Amino acid sequence: MAKRQLVTLLTDFSTRDPYVAAMKGVLLRHCPRAEIIDITHEIAPQDVLSAAFVLAEATRSFPDGTLHVVVVDPGVGTDRRILAGDIGGQRFLCPDNGVITFVAESREQRELVVVSNSRYVPAATSRTFHGRDIFAPVAAHILNGVDLARLGPRPKAFTMLDVPRPVVAGEVLAGQIVYVDRFGNLVSNIPIAAVEPWCAALDAVRVSCDGREVGALQGTYDFVERGAALALVNSMGLIEVAVNGGSAAAVLDAGVGATVRLRREARGAEA
Amino acid sequence: MAKRQLVTLLTDFSTRDPYVAAMKGVLLRHCPRAEIIDITHEIAPQDVLSAAFVLAEATRSFPDGTLHVVVVDPGVGTDRRILAGDIGGQRFLCPDNGVITFVAESREQRELVVVSNSRYVPAATSRTFHGRDIFAPVAAHILNGVDLARLGPRPKAFTMLDVPRPVVAGEVLAGQIVYVDRFGNLVSNIPIAAVEPWCAALDAVRVSCDGREVGALQGTYDFVERGAALALVNSMGLIEVAVNGGSAAAVLDAGVGATVRLRREARGAEA
Amino acid sequence: MAKRQLVTLLTDFSTRDPYVAAMKGVLLRHCPRAEIIDITHEIAPQDVLSAAFVLAEATRSFPDGTLHVVVVDPGVGTDRRILAGDIGGQRFLCPDNGVITFVAESREQRELVVVSNSRYVPAATSRTFHGRDIFAPVAAHILNGVDLARLGPRPKAFTMLDVPRPVVAGEVLAGQIVYVDRFGNLVSNIPIAAVEPWCAALDAVRVSCDGREVGALQGTYDFVERGAALALVNSMGLIEVAVNGGSAAAVLDAGVGATVRLRREARGAEA
Repeated sequence: MAKRQLVTLLTDFSTRDPYVAAMKGVLLRHCPRAEIIDITHEIAPQDVLSAAFVLAEATRSFPDGTLHVVVVDPGVGTDRRILAGDIGGQRFLCPDNGVITFVAESREQRELVVVSNSRYVPAATSRTFHGRDIFAPVAAHILNGVDLARLGPRPKAFTMLDVPRPVVAGEVLAGQIVYVDRFGNLVSNIPIAAVEPWCAALDAVRVSCDGREVGALQGTYDFVERGAALALVNSMGLIEVAVNGGSAAAVLDAGVGATVRLRREARGAEA
Repeated sequence: MAKRQLVTLLTDFSTRDPYVAAMKGVLLRHCPRAEIIDITHEIAPQDVLSAAFVLAEATRSFPDGTLHVVVVDPGVGTDRRILAGDIGGQRFLCPDNGVITFVAESREQRELVVVSNSRYVPAATSRTFHGRDIFAPVAAHILNGVDLARLGPRPKAFTMLDVPRPVVAGEVLAGQIVYVDRFGNLVSNIPIAAVEPWCAALDAVRVSCDGREVGALQGTYDFVERGAALALVNSMGLIEVAVNGGSAAAVLDAGVGATVRLRREARGAEA
Repeated sequence: MAKRQLVTLLTDFSTRDPYVAAMKGVLLRHCPRAEIIDITHEIAPQDVLSAAFVLAEATRSFPDGTLHVVVVDPGVGTDRRILAGDIGGQRFLCPDNGVITFVAESREQRELVVVSNSRYVPAATSRTFHGRDIFAPVAAHILNGVDLARLGPRPKAFTMLDVPRPVVAGEVLAGQIVYVDRFGNLVSNIPIAAVEPWCAALDAVRVSCDGREVGALQGTYDFVERGAALALVNSMGLIEVAVNGGSAAAVLDAGVGATVRLRREARGAEA
């Protein structure tokens, strides 16, 4: 049997409807060697920002050459473009709506095309389900060996989300919550790589979330007592506000957009 | 390695309990070549109508010969029969409770048997989990090459759901909502194939849902402003009532059973 | 292509976040032959008891040698140990927090090691996501053929949950609900194997749940009228309280911890 071709799916379809399975059926019909891994189908409907975040985090660890197909696509059926690309050794197929933002930002060696070659792009049989009618067959072509460059021309530009950036103001580094996970962990847009060069010492940093003090950066959740809030550097390398054994989103009543402030203090100062 | 054997699962088990994994374990134990694709496990408990709908829509696009195993089975442990069949090139294994209705209606070349040959049907070790104890091992036999005809005799009849049909009354074609998807899109039982021969021109059709006017048939969601209701022909070829960027189920406070009316007007008339 | 290596995942991550896919990516990167089956990712956050229950029930039917990876891990990043083992022919990799309890209880031939050999255990790149950083690469080593004995020494002891046991008092065998499934079925800790030697005849047993009588043991759900409560021996061999066509958890307002009493009566007595 020929080598299996790894392809992931990331959609906002949920798994309760026939949509995801219909896409998988088309993929397997056109590429019997496809090995399909679900990233998630639980993106909130049309939440391109969350999809962009999950895509970047989930795809870091896949084998080189994996194809990641994203169908979070509020503009389905309009003239929004479809992009295919090789970014940092992984391949992507997604609408040109900014869902590629964090992937494109974080990885070098980027090669993108606008999917448009009618030899490979079916005339859609629906205007509302391009996942089944366009993304799946194009993905199968890619898995079957069609070179990305043959799918269409390079774009002059492509859509990037206008994502908030952390800012430094005096002794404060301020960012915001950009993702809340199922545990209620509040993930900020502040990478540890931005914190380290700014503060004298990590143990002199104090964190607050929407004005609530959560103390110094901890090593892991269990470093504070059960039910207490804390801040830490999470597995994505981002500052995260959490509650040990609980939900920070619930305890702090905070969500996407909440302000996170890091204050640097003289080493050893009391918080 | 031998060719992998494609099998899908559609249940109302959810994925939070051990049940789906137990079925997969049995399948893989008896057929190591099984390649298992989930259609969905999120059918509402014992909702045979929704399962029938999802089955028909999801299975259209799978490779020929795929085996689809359905365990939405309120009658488990009673004397309800189990059917196996080849319908339109796809294979099915399901309880005889009407879940095959839309598949059987929409595809020709139908061959069904009542699964009963004790050589292939284990004496169930439980009366409440035939998914694990009967469906999975019988599915493995089918995947391993046992011909459907050996599983049992042809049924004289089998259960079909009493599904509502659209009706024409004068200038009105009336149907109802039969499925609501995760986006809150309201899917009716009115196929575009029934609309086209009835109306003079598609752009002269006006749609209402439970008495609320939603206008002409649109090309896609984005053809109306964000938050507005619309009607369109969906990816299944059915009339659907939706809200651009929102949930029609929530905005119109409508669900399964809601009335959908198409009114044909003189071409160009104002709605 | 080499033989595929079966591995299951059981976590409390849900499937909405990037975490499960990140684990799968690492598994496939280090073991391209891995065939990944999800047991569930819907364990309530940090609910080790439910995870232990689902693990034992789901893994019974898998092919011998299957590797089951469990990451329900409230102690992530602390000094809690990680166990690998071969128990009853199936292989396990899990935190030493009691999640192995029901598996270890129910199967003989148990061989466990504490995963600690630095040749196979990566220095974690995070302290909060050992699923991706430790469990997945160690699992890949096991799938690639590393013998369990090489992963670390045998433990002198390991953590077992303090699970309630059914007790006999006169004519009553009393236990409690330990699991509630998606149908609202209330699963007790009373195995039929404990009931049979205790009662003169199964049809002389009467069951109550939190003081509500539910009658004799039935063959299956459909043996009582729709909406009525009943008791039966479920597919796990445990006494279960259910409602035909409904949710016993809702109808009886009961959940984990509710008391279940079996009363033995003279054969043929009226309940």
